Amino acid sequence: MSQPITVTEARALLVAYVNAIDRGELKRWPEFFTDEAVYRITTHENEERGLPLSIMLCSNRAMRFDRLESLERANVFEPHRYRHVMGDTEIVSAGPGRATLRTSFVCVRIMVDGDTTLFVSGEYRDELVRGDGGLALAARTVVLDQSRIDTLIAIPL
Amino acid sequence: MSQPITVTEARALLVAYVNAIDRGELKRWPEFFTDEAVYRITTHENEERGLPLSIMLCSNRAMRFDRLESLERANVFEPHRYRHVMGDTEIVSAGPGRATLRTSFVCVRIMVDGDTTLFVSGEYRDELVRGDGGLALAARTVVLDQSRIDTLIAIPL
Amino acid sequence: MSQPITVTEARALLVAYVNAIDRGELKRWPEFFTDEAVYRITTHENEERGLPLSIMLCSNRAMRFDRLESLERANVFEPHRYRHVMGDTEIVSAGPGRATLRTSFVCVRIMVDGDTTLFVSGEYRDELVRGDGGLALAARTVVLDQSRIDTLIAIPL
Repeated sequence: MSQPITVTEARALLVAYVNAIDRGELKRWPEFFTDEAVYRITTHENEERGLPLSIMLCSNRAMRFDRLESLERANVFEPHRYRHVMGDTEIVSAGPGRATLRTSFVCVRIMVDGDTTLFVSGEYRDELVRGDGGLALAARTVVLDQSRIDTLIAIPL
Repeated sequence: MSQPITVTEARALLVAYVNAIDRGELKRWPEFFTDEAVYRITTHENEERGLPLSIMLCSNRAMRFDRLESLERANVFEPHRYRHVMGDTEIVSAGPGRATLRTSFVCVRIMVDGDTTLFVSGEYRDELVRGDGGLALAARTVVLDQSRIDTLIAIPL
Repeated sequence: MSQPITVTEARALLVAYVNAIDRGELKRWPEFFTDEAVYRITTHENEERGLPLSIMLCSNRAMRFDRLESLERANVFEPHRYRHVMGDTEIVSAGPGRATLRTSFVCVRIMVDGDTTLFVSGEYRDELVRGDGGLALAARTVVLDQSRIDTLIAIPL
């Protein structure tokens, strides 16, 4: 439980996370978090100014399931897919059974008609913990480079 | 010959493959395959529906050389370059001297006038084998996120 | 000093370099070079024709500080950020305390209004040396895939 977290195993979790989303296996999304984990999408500008504004906020497991359910029900947005590419994962600090990570990413969005755009880019700021079921995200803040997003972010990043 | 394939050596082959294409060393393309290897480009949608449709299909070595020859002869398309970026390679399964891999990618296309577009994205689904000459692709299916591609794919991905 | 350079430590330097730029820590940029290092941005086409033309050229430490200073003073360009994604780093050759590297990259540019474009792509061609203060770039040539760049490159790549 309190073994140090290596960059290799941390990376495996982060890769599994983006692969699950990119393959449309959205139901697996809550699996990657601890029950009480806070998931947030915010902007670089908000972070720099210390503003607690969020583009998306799920502060526990129930809210993550709600988010998935509303995605299934909703016809408000045009179906689309994501394709993430991540930079190398940096371990900022680590203690027994926990680690703080930063990882650059770029996310491409593909609409049903094939229209492909560079959707967003930014950095994952993660708290990873080792629990009974292996590694999990105890907190993920997605800090976007873009200070304004014209379109709704429906699918989690 | 029947040693297990490590992710490190598998990755080296995949990186050499995209580098050869991105550097314009197209003549090296057939080197990466076994003689009988099937190379296919298809779409995520076709794969999901189980449709055997291909955007590009080269089911043996001779067809790969034909493809290169027609590229040299052809003036039908405007010259362009690719730049690939790959996500981490996942070993789906492995046996003695063989491995099944999945790797995310994004491919940028650069026209002669400098016009740069996010061309396609998707996943490489590969069968790797260890032969006398080292590792080689025994099968590569390029599964595109885009269900429609407006432009001809001239250069292999 | 003359120990061989591993791909892991080389990569750590290259990742720290792009992270410093992408996080807006431009002041750290000269740190990554030896005093006499030559930093150049050129195009694939120039390189192929053997033309010594450069889009940006800083042939020593003083020129790199000049470049940063002019960036701070200048209001000629609209503020923007970069986000790099690099492919795997290839060690082309290595000797005691030095290595020649090639690394693919794609660079995204994000304007203040959120406008996100695939700015440039290409290859880092690096000479790395091990000195008293650790690894440093003794030369970096940024070879762009684009033969023409419509906009000024203000921030180093």
